Amino acid sequence: MDDPINLVLFSGTDDKLQAAAVLTAGAAALGRPVNVFLQYWALDAFRRDRIDRDHGLAPEAGPEGLAHVTALRTAGQATWADTLRQAKDLGGVDIQACSLSMDLLGIAESDLDPIVDGVEGVTSFYLNAGAGQVVFI
Amino acid sequence: MDDPINLVLFSGTDDKLQAAAVLTAGAAALGRPVNVFLQYWALDAFRRDRIDRDHGLAPEAGPEGLAHVTALRTAGQATWADTLRQAKDLGGVDIQACSLSMDLLGIAESDLDPIVDGVEGVTSFYLNAGAGQVVFI
Amino acid sequence: MDDPINLVLFSGTDDKLQAAAVLTAGAAALGRPVNVFLQYWALDAFRRDRIDRDHGLAPEAGPEGLAHVTALRTAGQATWADTLRQAKDLGGVDIQACSLSMDLLGIAESDLDPIVDGVEGVTSFYLNAGAGQVVFI
Repeated sequence: MDDPINLVLFSGTDDKLQAAAVLTAGAAALGRPVNVFLQYWALDAFRRDRIDRDHGLAPEAGPEGLAHVTALRTAGQATWADTLRQAKDLGGVDIQACSLSMDLLGIAESDLDPIVDGVEGVTSFYLNAGAGQVVFI
Repeated sequence: MDDPINLVLFSGTDDKLQAAAVLTAGAAALGRPVNVFLQYWALDAFRRDRIDRDHGLAPEAGPEGLAHVTALRTAGQATWADTLRQAKDLGGVDIQACSLSMDLLGIAESDLDPIVDGVEGVTSFYLNAGAGQVVFI
Repeated sequence: MDDPINLVLFSGTDDKLQAAAVLTAGAAALGRPVNVFLQYWALDAFRRDRIDRDHGLAPEAGPEGLAHVTALRTAGQATWADTLRQAKDLGGVDIQACSLSMDLLGIAESDLDPIVDGVEGVTSFYLNAGAGQVVFI
C-alpha cells in the first residue's frame, strides 16, 4: 500500500472532476500518496481564472442529473477544487500538468491555479508512478 | 492474481456498462475477485425500475454505432445486467453503491436492483480493493 | 516494473486516442511492455479505411478545444496513429482487437489497419495482462 495511486485526469466536466476529487481524498485519508496528472480538458479546468467556473456535466447526466448536482451545489457541497485542496492539506497529494497538453492548449504555468504543483512530461509521470496503479478518468 | 480487480463505474450508457460487464465476467471466469463500485450515472442505471431501460450510448457512437448495438440486442444478446448476474453466479463479484452518489441522486437502498449488494463509502472501497487494481469506467 | 501496462481503449475520439497513444509511447520509451485492447468505438477507429479520418473530439472540448487541436494538427503534430506506430517501432507494444466488439461492429480482421496485431477475447487479454495494471480509456 506504499505505492502511490496515479490519476490521469482527462475529462473536464464537474461530475468527473468531483469523482476524481473523491478518489483522491479517500486515498489521502488512508495515508496513501496520490499523483494527479492533468491532460486536455481536465487541465483546462485548472486554469486560475476558470477553476471556479461551471464546467458542465457529462452529456448522459441529462436534465435530471443536472437538477441533482445543482441542488447539492446550492446546499453548499464542497466543489471538486475545494475537495482537492482539503486532500492536499492531508499531505501526499501532488498535482502535475502534462507538458504536452500545456502546449496544446497554449497554457503557461502562471495561468494555472496554485493547487497545481508543477508541469511534467509523461515519462516523469511514469517514473513517479513507479509500481503504483494508473487510473484514467 | 489473488488481489481483486476493482471497477469504479461512473458512466451510465449501455455501451460502457456492457464493456464493464464483459471485463467483470472475464475476471470472474478466471476466478479473480471483482469489486464493483457504482457512482453517478452508473449508479442511476442500477435502480430497480431503470435497470432494464434503454440507457443510450456514448455520443460518439453515432447512428451507425446505434444500428449495430440495436441489431445485436434484437438478435438476443445478453444485456449488461444479465452479464453481471451471470458473473455473480460464478462467485467473487461484489457490487456496492457509493454512499456519496446515493445522497447526490436521492436514492434509497430499496430503490436499487437486487444485483447491488450494499452501500459503502470510498474509504471502504479502497480497503476492500487492497493492493488490487482500480479501473475507472 | 516488468509487468505490462494494459490499456483498454473504448473511446474513439481523437483526443482520447491521442492521450492513449502518449501513454503508450511513454511506457514504451521506458522499456515497459504495453498491451492495447480495442473495444467499441476505439476499435472502429482502427479500421484500415477510417484510421486517418477525423474522429471528432469529446463533447466537452467545445469550439475552443477544437480550435487548439486543429491548430496543432495544421502545424504538423503526429496523429495518434503515427504516435502508436512509433511506439511499436520501439518494441514491446502489442495491439489486439476485442473479439466481441469485432462481432458487434461486423468487422473482419482484414478490415483493420496493419497496426493491429490480432484479435482476442477478454480472457486472453487478462491472461496476457497478468499482474500488470489495467487502464480503461
